[in-house]
Amino acid sequence: MYYGTYLGLDKVLNAQHPVSFEAGNEPAHDEMLFIIIHQAYELWFKQILFELDYITGVFSKEKINDNAEDMNLVRHRLRRIIQILQLLNKQVEILDTMTPLDFLEFRNLLTPSSGFQSKQFRLLEARLGLEIDHRHHKDYYKRTNEGGFTREDYQHITAIEEGHNLLELVNRWLERIPFFREDFWTGYKATTAGKHHPFWNDYRAVYEAGLTEREKNKIHDFDLVFFEQRAAHYTDEQATAMKTLFSPAALRSALFIMLYRDFPLFQTSYQVLDALIEIDHLMSSWRHKHLVMVRRMIGMRVGTGNTSGAGYLEGAMSKHFVYRDLSGLSTYLIERKKLPALPDALIRNLGFQL
Amino acid sequence: MYYGTYLGLDKVLNAQHPVSFEAGNEPAHDEMLFIIIHQAYELWFKQILFELDYITGVFSKEKINDNAEDMNLVRHRLRRIIQILQLLNKQVEILDTMTPLDFLEFRNLLTPSSGFQSKQFRLLEARLGLEIDHRHHKDYYKRTNEGGFTREDYQHITAIEEGHNLLELVNRWLERIPFFREDFWTGYKATTAGKHHPFWNDYRAVYEAGLTEREKNKIHDFDLVFFEQRAAHYTDEQATAMKTLFSPAALRSALFIMLYRDFPLFQTSYQVLDALIEIDHLMSSWRHKHLVMVRRMIGMRVGTGNTSGAGYLEGAMSKHFVYRDLSGLSTYLIERKKLPALPDALIRNLGFQL
Amino acid sequence: MYYGTYLGLDKVLNAQHPVSFEAGNEPAHDEMLFIIIHQAYELWFKQILFELDYITGVFSKEKINDNAEDMNLVRHRLRRIIQILQLLNKQVEILDTMTPLDFLEFRNLLTPSSGFQSKQFRLLEARLGLEIDHRHHKDYYKRTNEGGFTREDYQHITAIEEGHNLLELVNRWLERIPFFREDFWTGYKATTAGKHHPFWNDYRAVYEAGLTEREKNKIHDFDLVFFEQRAAHYTDEQATAMKTLFSPAALRSALFIMLYRDFPLFQTSYQVLDALIEIDHLMSSWRHKHLVMVRRMIGMRVGTGNTSGAGYLEGAMSKHFVYRDLSGLSTYLIERKKLPALPDALIRNLGFQL
Amino acid sequence: MYYGTYLGLDKVLNAQHPVSFEAGNEPAHDEMLFIIIHQAYELWFKQILFELDYITGVFSKEKINDNAEDMNLVRHRLRRIIQILQLLNKQVEILDTMTPLDFLEFRNLLTPSSGFQSKQFRLLEARLGLEIDHRHHKDYYKRTNEGGFTREDYQHITAIEEGHNLLELVNRWLERIPFFREDFWTGYKATTAGKHHPFWNDYRAVYEAGLTEREKNKIHDFDLVFFEQRAAHYTDEQATAMKTLFSPAALRSALFIMLYRDFPLFQTSYQVLDALIEIDHLMSSWRHKHLVMVRRMIGMRVGTGNTSGAGYLEGAMSKHFVYRDLSGLSTYLIERKKLPALPDALIRNLGFQL
Repeated sequence: MYYGTYLGLDKVLNAQHPVSFEAGNEPAHDEMLFIIIHQAYELWFKQILFELDYITGVFSKEKINDNAEDMNLVRHRLRRIIQILQLLNKQVEILDTMTPLDFLEFRNLLTPSSGFQSKQFRLLEARLGLEIDHRHHKDYYKRTNEGGFTREDYQHITAIEEGHNLLELVNRWLERIPFFREDFWTGYKATTAGKHHPFWNDYRAVYEAGLTEREKNKIHDFDLVFFEQRAAHYTDEQATAMKTLFSPAALRSALFIMLYRDFPLFQTSYQVLDALIEIDHLMSSWRHKHLVMVRRMIGMRVGTGNTSGAGYLEGAMSKHFVYRDLSGLSTYLIERKKLPALPDALIRNLGFQL
Repeated sequence: MYYGTYLGLDKVLNAQHPVSFEAGNEPAHDEMLFIIIHQAYELWFKQILFELDYITGVFSKEKINDNAEDMNLVRHRLRRIIQILQLLNKQVEILDTMTPLDFLEFRNLLTPSSGFQSKQFRLLEARLGLEIDHRHHKDYYKRTNEGGFTREDYQHITAIEEGHNLLELVNRWLERIPFFREDFWTGYKATTAGKHHPFWNDYRAVYEAGLTEREKNKIHDFDLVFFEQRAAHYTDEQATAMKTLFSPAALRSALFIMLYRDFPLFQTSYQVLDALIEIDHLMSSWRHKHLVMVRRMIGMRVGTGNTSGAGYLEGAMSKHFVYRDLSGLSTYLIERKKLPALPDALIRNLGFQL
Repeated sequence: MYYGTYLGLDKVLNAQHPVSFEAGNEPAHDEMLFIIIHQAYELWFKQILFELDYITGVFSKEKINDNAEDMNLVRHRLRRIIQILQLLNKQVEILDTMTPLDFLEFRNLLTPSSGFQSKQFRLLEARLGLEIDHRHHKDYYKRTNEGGFTREDYQHITAIEEGHNLLELVNRWLERIPFFREDFWTGYKATTAGKHHPFWNDYRAVYEAGLTEREKNKIHDFDLVFFEQRAAHYTDEQATAMKTLFSPAALRSALFIMLYRDFPLFQTSYQVLDALIEIDHLMSSWRHKHLVMVRRMIGMRVGTGNTSGAGYLEGAMSKHFVYRDLSGLSTYLIERKKLPALPDALIRNLGFQL
Repeated sequence: MYYGTYLGLDKVLNAQHPVSFEAGNEPAHDEMLFIIIHQAYELWFKQILFELDYITGVFSKEKINDNAEDMNLVRHRLRRIIQILQLLNKQVEILDTMTPLDFLEFRNLLTPSSGFQSKQFRLLEARLGLEIDHRHHKDYYKRTNEGGFTREDYQHITAIEEGHNLLELVNRWLERIPFFREDFWTGYKATTAGKHHPFWNDYRAVYEAGLTEREKNKIHDFDLVFFEQRAAHYTDEQATAMKTLFSPAALRSALFIMLYRDFPLFQTSYQVLDALIEIDHLMSSWRHKHLVMVRRMIGMRVGTGNTSGAGYLEGAMSKHFVYRDLSGLSTYLIERKKLPALPDALIRNLGFQL
């Protein structure tokens, strides 16, 4: 067993073939960096996908055993993904040491290939839960012509996209968590509106009652998001704008876990939800750094600040949030001191018999 | 001379007064972090402003001495600002350890104050070159009522905004750099169009000639950006979209420095331009992290992903670029090997008599 | 409520008084950075101490309620301390932008004060568990003359040092955790030796048996560390070298938690132990960066690489580990698959009644 | 041209073969991370070596052209190496997510291979200037048996070690820089001693004169370091302890550049020297993080804090400084205001004819 052999360095360290170094071209020093940094990205994408295999595996179980390592390892490995994404964000700074003038030396030799063709990155997004129909310029992703994916890669991606992604599996897991008597939410909703209201679930009453517009809307949003009850006066457009990726039942569980995170049974689950939000944010951060870098590298019409490439990235940045339903739950939090007390029977199930 | 006295720690370490700790309120543990992290931000803002004092001081000179420390220190201190901004970006991660539920415990006690009221941050933006008229929702910045600035702070900010900001001073410095025979640009422009064209400056000819649309537009943009010559067929809207913050003469110098950066006379100047671009990007990065954090903290209507606060930040993020004219210059770069040779007389002035 | 007033910025932003800026001296530009960066450090030290107040508060309880937020918040706030320490490590890079020549401009004006006099940093170390008798050059810390602490600060520090530090409290908490039948460790120890041995606890037998030296030593170390049983042939020196800061009973619990971390009851406790180790490592990292920076700043006899200041820091770096007994436990880990099975009765207490 | 083909991803992404995944073994989840993180390290080592090729290439020139890109690119690419090293430092945090218990699952399958066998890392150290004779436990590096290098790798390393490393080339470059009249140093030395002394170069006089011990030693050290003049009373041991890796002539130039860094001719050279120091520090930082990580991973005899592996790393950390002569120069700096004025003729050569 020898270090280099074990790590397959003969393969890894012989996979750099700058086109500009080939006979007939003028060697562009920075093409080596360009290749190596992308290879490093791909290595890490593979690692993230490997961790996702385990994580989706756990969430695919019919029954997750809260007394075994399942969720504890999911938490641990999501944290690892987070640290990898932090590294990938930092890695962009190294590419920034390649100035636009340096890039120009070999840029044309690479067309029409582009980072857009990274299969692993697409899979990573898809498996986290970014569905093709929610992608910015979705047809963009379906090209198998120049600049798009090979038919083979495309089929692979499509197959994965048709399988269950992490968001769906987490949604299913949340839906399975068994609580609670409807009236918990009845009281809770009234509280979120900032004022307790006896007839909260009687819309007519709501309008007659002394609730502010803001309070009423909060109640209407609450009904829509957590119970799919749409206020009579909501336009289809409003309703669509409020459409969530998670189901109402799942969001109720997620909210409940956020609120009662300190009970042993939820301590690890809460960290899992929190990690999903953080992953989403790091992906967004990565897209932002990437956008800024591409703008600088490829340039833009001075003054306008755009290129089709950068334009696409800008759209993706604001649209490709997968777990924003979870971060959005903050809207419906209430202060700990106002939390409805839980029934003793329930509390017993949330902790240890000490 | 004693460490604590020298650093005025009696003041600095006694300036934390969480409202929630006052009699009558329930202490919210995380309010201490909230206060300290903002104080740390303000300390660093002060340091950045202090460095900017020096830098703008140099650029305000009638004549910058290229044989003395002027530009070398400007470069050095811009790099320092960059490192501080990198720290401030990382610092956001610490605020992320305050969960929305924790924030809720004291959030209401703080209204209507908000980070928007940070005078130093506004000054920092203003002095870098962000003018009130280019701000997103500019009237927002003019409020002196609840949630706005005190009249005193507002006047201070306005006074600074009326002075010369770094962008203006850098623009003036660039304009003063003496070059070059017009025909340098004549040849250069033709090259940027990807094809040399004898009648490049005869529009009629251009249309008859075998230039692609893209090539023609490149030439037209070039004329507009670097020579304020507007192509007959440009609509006012197009022309406005192409408006730059730097003057054509300044942009010509900046482009020239980027291209010939390796000549001794430009080595430091190039690093200065590069630092300004990086500062812009780090400010943008900070706005993005800030946006994501605020969204998560204050929440949004689930599904829509927006609050007025976050909405404002989103607009600011895409609009508050100050030096994008400089990063945008990449559009007009050409490969080193195609660079027009410089006259020997000029070359002699760009280097040392060895 | 106004941002600046709330944050006491009138105090914080008016606490910078560079000596070199005073009449009669030549202003040294970098003294401002020097002051502000130290103030930022002190602000963060205050925050860390504030978090430690809460954490030691929990561990001071007669009984920690595993069914409430106690340990969950301890975990959360230890993670926050970790993120702050990461920031402080990065912050050193900013001080690196002050070159030795720049420091020289005002360095002499500061004598005899030094960072060594940071009361908060000493308290931070003391409260984490660094005892005066384990400090490198302990008398160094007792000076109240020039370069030392004021008598007042010194007394404050001493008072704190005499109270219970986090290490002691964590030790007490670990000792209270009730397990296990001696024979668990009997079997375990034999396994760590890499070979099961029937007479493991009969030293004579051990020597006669076919154990390698390494195996025997492992067993002897085990006896000493976890049961205070010293092998007959150990010299006093060896025994002293093996002295631990945690008690054998506490180390047994810590090891047990590390091994069975996946059981719900230990999931959070394990993260707490892990965080303590990480804090120790970040403190060490900080000392290393600090050492390298001081060496560069103050210089050293070329070739020797030392100054008394740097010499002290080097000693501190290698000696000031507080939780190395915890990281050292790795020596006694065995593979999961070899772990002794736990009695069902016990297992029931480690999880939920689902 | 297709992204995946261009990057040789078929090779790079198929080079991970965890031993524990092979038939007959129990798959250890974290072995994948272990492999990928080491491959990422090796990719970056290749990039650093590639940059070093260019840099040593420039310094190997008989004559470096200060009017061309040579030094500007050396500066730029050294900065890139710095950013890569910063990334590699951060990368250690990811390996920290593999806990000792996880490592134990496959650790034994890897013996006797170890990171010590990374050929590229050795080459990197060697090419920076770490000579075999200055290595900690140098014979350690000569093993070609188990745990050492293959004979082939060993020969490759030795060949490189016999070539000119960066330190030697930089030393030669510094020696070639032509200055200055001896008497510059005469006056300078006297000043560094903190007191001007007429008979500075007459040792007898020095003892009779009113210099403090410290002042005298400073002068003696100065003579030894910059002029190889050894004070009569220095013991061989003292003299050896003061031995430098750079030659006196080179150190004089380096010191001169540090002092007059603001003159155009030195602006870039100074940044180059500064970058070499920073690289040294980042390598040291990396060794420290590595040491701490290994200690935690492999453990140590509790209380003693050591394993042979960690012991070696500890020694390496404090010994493997390559450019400490440069950082050590701070000892001999004097305040700008005390700097001897330079002759006009010289000044003219240090700047531009404006």
